[in-house]
Amino acid sequence: MTSTVLNLQPLLEEGRENELAGLLSTLHPADVAEALSPLDMEDTIKVMSLLDVAQAAEVLVELSESSRDQVTLGLPRDKLTQMVAEMDSDDAADIVGDLSEAAAEEVLKAIGDEESEEVRRLLMYDEETAGGLMQLELVAASGQDTVAKVINDIRAASEDLGDLTSIYVVDQARALQGEISLKDLLLAYPHETLSQLIQKAPGLVVRVDEDQKAVAQKFRKYDVRSAPVVDSQNRLLGRIMVDDIIDVVDEETDKDFYRLAGSSEEEVYTSGAIKRASLRLPWLLFNLGGGLVTSFILKYFEASFQKTMALVAFVPMVMSLSGAVGSQSATITVRGLATGRIGQGLIFRSLGMEQKVSLVMALVFGLAITLIAGSLRSAPRLGLAVGLSLGAAILVSAFLGAITPLFFRAINVDPALASGPVVTSANDVAALMIYAAIGSAVA
Amino acid sequence: MTSTVLNLQPLLEEGRENELAGLLSTLHPADVAEALSPLDMEDTIKVMSLLDVAQAAEVLVELSESSRDQVTLGLPRDKLTQMVAEMDSDDAADIVGDLSEAAAEEVLKAIGDEESEEVRRLLMYDEETAGGLMQLELVAASGQDTVAKVINDIRAASEDLGDLTSIYVVDQARALQGEISLKDLLLAYPHETLSQLIQKAPGLVVRVDEDQKAVAQKFRKYDVRSAPVVDSQNRLLGRIMVDDIIDVVDEETDKDFYRLAGSSEEEVYTSGAIKRASLRLPWLLFNLGGGLVTSFILKYFEASFQKTMALVAFVPMVMSLSGAVGSQSATITVRGLATGRIGQGLIFRSLGMEQKVSLVMALVFGLAITLIAGSLRSAPRLGLAVGLSLGAAILVSAFLGAITPLFFRAINVDPALASGPVVTSANDVAALMIYAAIGSAVA
Repeated sequence: MTSTVLNLQPLLEEGRENELAGLLSTLHPADVAEALSPLDMEDTIKVMSLLDVAQAAEVLVELSESSRDQVTLGLPRDKLTQMVAEMDSDDAADIVGDLSEAAAEEVLKAIGDEESEEVRRLLMYDEETAGGLMQLELVAASGQDTVAKVINDIRAASEDLGDLTSIYVVDQARALQGEISLKDLLLAYPHETLSQLIQKAPGLVVRVDEDQKAVAQKFRKYDVRSAPVVDSQNRLLGRIMVDDIIDVVDEETDKDFYRLAGSSEEEVYTSGAIKRASLRLPWLLFNLGGGLVTSFILKYFEASFQKTMALVAFVPMVMSLSGAVGSQSATITVRGLATGRIGQGLIFRSLGMEQKVSLVMALVFGLAITLIAGSLRSAPRLGLAVGLSLGAAILVSAFLGAITPLFFRAINVDPALASGPVVTSANDVAALMIYAAIGSAVA
Repeated sequence: MTSTVLNLQPLLEEGRENELAGLLSTLHPADVAEALSPLDMEDTIKVMSLLDVAQAAEVLVELSESSRDQVTLGLPRDKLTQMVAEMDSDDAADIVGDLSEAAAEEVLKAIGDEESEEVRRLLMYDEETAGGLMQLELVAASGQDTVAKVINDIRAASEDLGDLTSIYVVDQARALQGEISLKDLLLAYPHETLSQLIQKAPGLVVRVDEDQKAVAQKFRKYDVRSAPVVDSQNRLLGRIMVDDIIDVVDEETDKDFYRLAGSSEEEVYTSGAIKRASLRLPWLLFNLGGGLVTSFILKYFEASFQKTMALVAFVPMVMSLSGAVGSQSATITVRGLATGRIGQGLIFRSLGMEQKVSLVMALVFGLAITLIAGSLRSAPRLGLAVGLSLGAAILVSAFLGAITPLFFRAINVDPALASGPVVTSANDVAALMIYAAIGSAVA
């Protein structure tokens, strides 16, 4: 565990590869992955080839997705195959799933029948569902089995099992009957049968086709560290561990951030500037469209503005303030939906709250600007026009900001996707229309 | 596990309290907490009083912080005391820590010496550090102890221990010597000593004064499900479980969202509209200030704008587009810093990437607007003025958007706090200055 990232560059440049290999073998795979992140692809692959297969496999899993894909392509195929054979089924499926079809076939043929069958089975599930998250390594036993027998079974399979938090009891059709925590198993007596140990309180059970976002919310809600995954007939298929859930939470938060900004979470896995720009550009077309509409509005009101040039001076302020208020409402609503704080039965309460908050802000800023603009230009009518329209624009922007994500959620579109650029450009147009109409009438 | 939230209102209104109590006793505490969320405080407290003490204690811990505080105040003091006595030490400390000093003393006196001493000890740590997260319930044993002895000790304390993922080996001074997973303990033979079982690979060890954000990043990085907490002399003080880490991740993400929006994460715990508005208002003063500056800029260039009114028509578009580009850079940089993607040694690479992306966007939009504005008004010089200044404004905005969070991180100010309103208002001013200067010169 190092607090500063290890700098591998000097050792690499001086060709001290033995020293480097020795150093790396003492490190946690996550630390090796971190030390690799500033290196270019050639050096990364050179370092990966210095690691033994087991450590290299763990490091590959820890790499960021964008560099993982490149490393996978750059590694000699036989080394990659050995690494995949070492991995847990879920990690192996993630790596193989990102390969080209031909490369995937080659690796699957080489890793052995049982393992390749497992990976193929996992690859059938959508990546963003419970099936895409689960691993097949687990302990399932019959209720008639004794504690002693199960412990022996676990010992025999220990190498492949990884960490265990609980074991599952299934019937002959592999239908899930219950879960026993490792603590209860540890405290049980050897001759007890598993059915005697099953607690009545149900843990979390996840359906294989459940969306990963829903699965993550349940892990959080029920504070569990692992959950069994079942099919529609309640047959046990796999298990999900909480560390994979933390990755899902990060992934979903990434999505919300990137989409609210008017981009796509694909940027995380993208290294080229043109590709990144192409992910952001389409969303800016909303702003471009809104901008064209505002230019027409201003042209339409050109005569009034030309007569009272002072009105023009406050256009940016009205748009900036009402836009900021709208973004606050939109961001806070999107986050509320993501965390479940704005859940069933709380939608209208949340909308009402945003309206009340915006009313306070409309009053405060409307009044302040009436006084400021009026006295700056010694024109009380102008001040009133600016203040009134700012207040009205704030109310409309906050309403658009809060209702847009709720509306998109209702029609099953990601609220974050829709709210950023859609809300800002709608607000631009609405605020300017209000300002131009009130301003030209009053001033 | 219910997928739709239970509606308690009808049963409450009809006064069918026995039925309600029976129904609630079958539910997971997290489901009870969810069913309580749409109720008002009076009904919430009425329902809480129907639960037995153990379940009520668990439900209280699951409630959102804002309603938890109110429920704590509304419950009869003796019931609250019994509930606190039932809780894990970390939850008890959270509840007692939110009480008034007098109420906290009253509860602490009533819950028994050992428990109150534990809670007092935990309350000394900053809430946002490892000490504020840890619980004291854990298993620590000597390396000379046999597996059989430890299992007996665990059995004796089982009730208080909650879930176990591993046990800790300490020396006579309670210095941490190693960790043994429950799986290794389960597979060990009764006569083996613990020191024979300690694995050489170190798990994650957390210092008691580490910031919770850093602790959460380490849990993610090392994929652990629990971690021991030690003091500066490596003495074992407590343990942190991964479900508390998920709460930290959510809390930190909340912070980033609210601060980027120009508000404070306190909103999550705030129910009044005026209080909420007062959390958002101060940040909008940046926009107000920026707005006043833009009004002076426009006044300064009044003559040019009045001569070429067509220039005015494109003010909102230039500001909106460059503002959106700046927000994209700021949001993506803030998220990169939060996830550690923009880590040590990667700051200049990230800044360079944002510059390259913005160059692509400046070229695309600058050219597009030159053509659009030029042909809309049949004035190529005007088109060139708008396009040139939009391109320049985009470059400046993207630079400000990317550098601001990095700068604030460098001076140890939360990047999210600073980036939202600071970046948008700086961009407003910068974009308008560029536009007015280039526009009045060229058009």
